[in-house]
Amino acid sequence: MKKWILLLAFATGFAQKSDEEQLKAIYHQALTNSKSYTWLEYLSNSIGPRLSGSEGAQKAVEYTKAQMEALGVFDKVYLQEVMVPKWVRGEKEEAYFKDGNKKVSVPICALGGSVATSKKGISAEVVEVQSLKELEVLGVEKLKGKIVFFNRSMDHSQIEAFRAYSGAGDQRRAGAKEASKYGAIGVIVRSLNFRLDDLPHAGNTSYGDLPVEQRIPACAISTNGAELLSKKLKANPKLMFYFKQSCFQEEDVLSYNVVGEIKGSETPENIMVVGGHLDSWDLADGSHDDGAGCVQSMDVAYIFKNLGYKPKNTLRVVLFMNEENGGRGGDKYEELSLKNKENHIFAMESDSGGFTPRGFSFEADDASFEKIVQWKSLFEPYLIHYFTRGYSGADIQDLTSKRIVKAGLRPDSQRYFDHHHASNDTFEAINKRELELGAATMTSLIYLIDKYGI
Amino acid sequence: MKKWILLLAFATGFAQKSDEEQLKAIYHQALTNSKSYTWLEYLSNSIGPRLSGSEGAQKAVEYTKAQMEALGVFDKVYLQEVMVPKWVRGEKEEAYFKDGNKKVSVPICALGGSVATSKKGISAEVVEVQSLKELEVLGVEKLKGKIVFFNRSMDHSQIEAFRAYSGAGDQRRAGAKEASKYGAIGVIVRSLNFRLDDLPHAGNTSYGDLPVEQRIPACAISTNGAELLSKKLKANPKLMFYFKQSCFQEEDVLSYNVVGEIKGSETPENIMVVGGHLDSWDLADGSHDDGAGCVQSMDVAYIFKNLGYKPKNTLRVVLFMNEENGGRGGDKYEELSLKNKENHIFAMESDSGGFTPRGFSFEADDASFEKIVQWKSLFEPYLIHYFTRGYSGADIQDLTSKRIVKAGLRPDSQRYFDHHHASNDTFEAINKRELELGAATMTSLIYLIDKYGI
Repeated sequence: MKKWILLLAFATGFAQKSDEEQLKAIYHQALTNSKSYTWLEYLSNSIGPRLSGSEGAQKAVEYTKAQMEALGVFDKVYLQEVMVPKWVRGEKEEAYFKDGNKKVSVPICALGGSVATSKKGISAEVVEVQSLKELEVLGVEKLKGKIVFFNRSMDHSQIEAFRAYSGAGDQRRAGAKEASKYGAIGVIVRSLNFRLDDLPHAGNTSYGDLPVEQRIPACAISTNGAELLSKKLKANPKLMFYFKQSCFQEEDVLSYNVVGEIKGSETPENIMVVGGHLDSWDLADGSHDDGAGCVQSMDVAYIFKNLGYKPKNTLRVVLFMNEENGGRGGDKYEELSLKNKENHIFAMESDSGGFTPRGFSFEADDASFEKIVQWKSLFEPYLIHYFTRGYSGADIQDLTSKRIVKAGLRPDSQRYFDHHHASNDTFEAINKRELELGAATMTSLIYLIDKYGI
Repeated sequence: MKKWILLLAFATGFAQKSDEEQLKAIYHQALTNSKSYTWLEYLSNSIGPRLSGSEGAQKAVEYTKAQMEALGVFDKVYLQEVMVPKWVRGEKEEAYFKDGNKKVSVPICALGGSVATSKKGISAEVVEVQSLKELEVLGVEKLKGKIVFFNRSMDHSQIEAFRAYSGAGDQRRAGAKEASKYGAIGVIVRSLNFRLDDLPHAGNTSYGDLPVEQRIPACAISTNGAELLSKKLKANPKLMFYFKQSCFQEEDVLSYNVVGEIKGSETPENIMVVGGHLDSWDLADGSHDDGAGCVQSMDVAYIFKNLGYKPKNTLRVVLFMNEENGGRGGDKYEELSLKNKENHIFAMESDSGGFTPRGFSFEADDASFEKIVQWKSLFEPYLIHYFTRGYSGADIQDLTSKRIVKAGLRPDSQRYFDHHHASNDTFEAINKRELELGAATMTSLIYLIDKYGI
């Protein structure tokens, strides 16, 4: 009898390891024999920025597809066609205000989706506000012909940086749309950055269904620039601000989600997705947002391969296109999933930076969440402690199935907005071990989901 | 009755807040109204490196004393005299090996405490080893007249970086002493750094009681340099290595611990210490090691002041001198404490970098540790989760009292050794919020210790 058990254990290999041993093996692989850092270096330094519709985005599709194929672990690697918006920044923006006779330049960048100014730029008095609500109070009388300056800082007292980001984000997303209703001719938004520095941070603005002729140009100003402008406005409320940007929207173009699939060995009809988004903003190579999430997702498959682990359920690594300014890749994945009547049991996105992982936030029913929380102690040796309910990720948020658990990796958030959407979201800001620990943490959860179901 | 309670609550102010409210107020203060970042900027950018006995160290003593006095919260701010070793690096080191006819330079730095080479430098064949043990096996026959190259990497599979550091540190600390016993004429040690880069990392080496004439020069080589040298040695075991360094030890000089003391309002005879070390290595300004710990400790007092909190027990902020190459400040503090028959109930050191805090490690008896662990849930909103038993800190490790709990702040450790003792341990590597969260976490624990005792 004993011999028989031993033989069985030997034959089934990986499956006989305890969960403790399995997680240990996963973290060991990630820290000593993973590819995420090398992949990210290529994506960041050899390909560079990957805004939807750009040459970089196309190269990234080709590169990651080829890399996934080369791993030899996927049953198939394929592209999902998706039409994406193509927004182009054009020439470097220019902005200054007049301090007496002196022109004082400030660093700005056009917000994604913004229209251009006229070729000569625009110049007007500035009205500083702290919120969208203030616009109502000021009304057309005070705002017509003016440039509105949204200057509400991220709330420094928040512990989780993403909460502070959410709390200030309406200015960027809806500032231009709202200000134009009161006759403003342009919008300046304080960069969503805790730090005081000289980098403008991009990100999308939306005009909603505002007619094209009512759309006004919107830019982000660096936090130091915002502080300076605010100070000078107090001294001289009639101060004239000038800015010029030449961005434009082209026709939608064809792009792709990249998908690698390992067919489940027992219940292939049950699908687990892990992914990040392949597009980035154009000011930098988006190493944290979200090159990190893409290469970590690819590493999940590589780590399983090296451990000889065959998932029971189908595992898909999905690199979504166009999260930043349209979400079309996520929509397309969902559309095809519905059309093909697929059954997703799990989806995970890593899109919060490549910093030290702390845990996950989950969208799950009570029973599933309770089950998952019981695994928390398995993660303790890896300093993973954050298991909470909440938002998963932009590309998977609309994905539905009969029963599905969705999760977002939650790395340490304190440094994320120092780089987010700015020209310093580069490979130098990545720490290899932090990136790898994220990949290990993701792999471990997927292993447990695969083994125990939801 | 109700009125009376209200009046009492009003009169006693802070003390009536629940612990939850109190910690919230502490974190709020730290993130919105603290001084640690500004102090550290001055220490780092205006004063700079602070090796014991240097001008920088003296300026740091004067600056922090003046800043503590200016806070107006301490009953007294004073200096504790302590004689410290003074080691001087001298001229920039030089090192190369011969690859055929080509001189290939590699980045090195003398290890702290090392003797110089001769003025012309030394040149010899290299024997690469992975451990001190290997020296025994090789013996005098293989090592006499050679340069020993200790090239064991930090163990990448460790989750906590400090464990990997401990696991590789014997090469630096004792490599020169041990190799000299076998007739080696010099030592090269792989820098204690996970990353592959071009920075040599300093740190102390000790000759123990080895007679002066037997001491051999020891240097650290960058990790890239170590990889290259190792590769070239495989191709050519007879390769000649040259290095030159002109470091020297001067006579001990007078320096100081800086102490700020708030006398306890109820049991002043019970003392709580919080501190870091004011000295740094000489290659950079030591923003993480340990400027961060010093300014965080000072912020504990500033946060208490702003919250109107008067500790029941005496609180001492102690900035220790000479942790890096002698530990004389810690020894002196302990000596005076014994002499004055002081009763310490608590000591905390922050000397693991200014990164996002994760918790503490404690030296405590069972009863005290169990009590402290019960406070863990109070820290959860601040993502503090690490309460474990273990090492506290170098400057407080020998401090004894009738009954004392000792704690070390444990920040995220993944990036620490990218900077530790190297020329990039600078202010740019500090994130303001991470630093402040550390100060808040320290203040919170001290508040609870003060309130509930041990």
